[in-house]
Amino acid sequence: MAQTRNVVIGMDLGGTNVRAAVFSMEGALLARRQTLMEAARGPAVGLENVRKLIEEVLGLAGSVALRGIGIGSTGPLDRARGTIQNPWTLPTWKDVDIVSPLSAHFHVPVMLENDADAAALGEYWQGAGKGVRRLCALTVGTGVGTGFILDGSIYRGWRGLHCEVGHQVLDPNGPECYCGAHGCMEVLIAGPALGKLAREKAAAGENSLLWEMAGGNIDQIDARTAMEAARRGDPAALEVAQHAGRYLGLGLVNIIAFLAPEVIVLGGSVMSSYDLLQPIVREILERHSVLMPSREVCIVPAQLGDNAGVCGAALTAIQTLPRAGRTI
Amino acid sequence: MAQTRNVVIGMDLGGTNVRAAVFSMEGALLARRQTLMEAARGPAVGLENVRKLIEEVLGLAGSVALRGIGIGSTGPLDRARGTIQNPWTLPTWKDVDIVSPLSAHFHVPVMLENDADAAALGEYWQGAGKGVRRLCALTVGTGVGTGFILDGSIYRGWRGLHCEVGHQVLDPNGPECYCGAHGCMEVLIAGPALGKLAREKAAAGENSLLWEMAGGNIDQIDARTAMEAARRGDPAALEVAQHAGRYLGLGLVNIIAFLAPEVIVLGGSVMSSYDLLQPIVREILERHSVLMPSREVCIVPAQLGDNAGVCGAALTAIQTLPRAGRTI
Repeated sequence: MAQTRNVVIGMDLGGTNVRAAVFSMEGALLARRQTLMEAARGPAVGLENVRKLIEEVLGLAGSVALRGIGIGSTGPLDRARGTIQNPWTLPTWKDVDIVSPLSAHFHVPVMLENDADAAALGEYWQGAGKGVRRLCALTVGTGVGTGFILDGSIYRGWRGLHCEVGHQVLDPNGPECYCGAHGCMEVLIAGPALGKLAREKAAAGENSLLWEMAGGNIDQIDARTAMEAARRGDPAALEVAQHAGRYLGLGLVNIIAFLAPEVIVLGGSVMSSYDLLQPIVREILERHSVLMPSREVCIVPAQLGDNAGVCGAALTAIQTLPRAGRTI
Repeated sequence: MAQTRNVVIGMDLGGTNVRAAVFSMEGALLARRQTLMEAARGPAVGLENVRKLIEEVLGLAGSVALRGIGIGSTGPLDRARGTIQNPWTLPTWKDVDIVSPLSAHFHVPVMLENDADAAALGEYWQGAGKGVRRLCALTVGTGVGTGFILDGSIYRGWRGLHCEVGHQVLDPNGPECYCGAHGCMEVLIAGPALGKLAREKAAAGENSLLWEMAGGNIDQIDARTAMEAARRGDPAALEVAQHAGRYLGLGLVNIIAFLAPEVIVLGGSVMSSYDLLQPIVREILERHSVLMPSREVCIVPAQLGDNAGVCGAALTAIQTLPRAGRTI
């Protein structure tokens, strides 16, 4: 008879997909699956999808004993109450308790975390910032998600608040964000912001490669188009890259001024073009190295890709277990 | 015979004066004295002044046994090496070891900290943020000094670095600072910045009350003049106050986004006019309360005044002693 292995589940709950992975207590990934959230069909369907996914992935992992579940979810959420309040990317999910039903069904502790925090913790545990004492991770995609890992745990603010480094104000003359700020980092460098800027640049000059790449339809120009056109030397697109690099650089300067981390991990779709932005970012870090060693802080690409969230979520579950029963 | 009491010394070492105070292990201030640093006469004279000051204040405290010395000093400094590198405000003090000679002379551990960190720790221990888990203190005077106290200790960055929240970038189109940034918080709201802005406003309009208050000499207009003129309703000076309130507010928004502290303590000469800036600051915090509860964070004036530095420095000394021998 095969020996039963203690495991935890790490989940990554997004607007479209939900991923689940089984991890051993030592951090080995034993099985991984994903399914559609179908959020718009209502919380009951979504929760059922999640439950079935967990059972499926546990089945794949073989002879295991489940000890805990960690969930990294698109927010806003309430960790203490275990509820998700996100009718924007999870239509119908307005104050949905996800912790109680899963905990009752699987008879294990369930932890709910912000997805950016979970991704940061994953990169700390098994990725680009393995074991460093202070790690800040940025995920630049539709938004700018950030997590700060201090001494191996997610940094908590007042009332256990998740911090919002991605909404730091960088330029009060910048565009308006839903967060209330003008010129916060997200509204300056997230994908939608870069797409909008590229469309403005394209509208201002008819010769841009952006038009060609979008088949003459301006609505088809997005951040990806802009980065590809910049790579091919298009002047308008290079201005977009310049903008992105400048504000990313200033955001990193502030992260270093506030937190002085050893490592900053960059992930998300926009950061797959980091090589284009890097010269500008490096120049800005160099210039801001009088009081802080900005030029020396390690700025590295995320290593875990889609696995960062499930990995970090699994670690939050392990961290709730009695220390005697774990190796981390 | 009087009972000998265990004590520590807290020192506040500035460009002009050095203060020393004797504290009991329970935090009672037993004696306090200050003297001139006379930094320009060379480190040997300065160190001798410090040594004599400590002996004098110990003498005033009665029958005591010295257990440690904590120093909050104007930086830059190197905590690990115990050296001060500040030829700017302490002329001739370029890489001066202050820890070794004092430790050798008094036979106790000596801790060296940044003065803004010491002041923040003082406000945590006995002042405006007594016992809160996350406290950020801003001292706005000649510069913007900041300290972040997390779970009762000064937050340390990589390599034990002191963080530089006062040099966060708030407006990349702002004036240039020696730190390398354009529009960092210090170059926008510290006393010299407000004085410069007031002189510019005065130069642009001859009817300003600023001229009258400065006796017709523009060089006499400083931050204090501006705040007083604003209080008397002068339009040019009110623009200076508006500027100060706006950028202070945005700086607080970022502090909350990064650290989510329970309490932010405001001290320093410029903050003695906080009542003038408060309406603008409150409006900004209100507007930036979508993701973070900025409007609810407690923004309070510093309570310890000149004693914050010596008080926090004393606590750093106490914190190095074996836990058995202390009550904190």
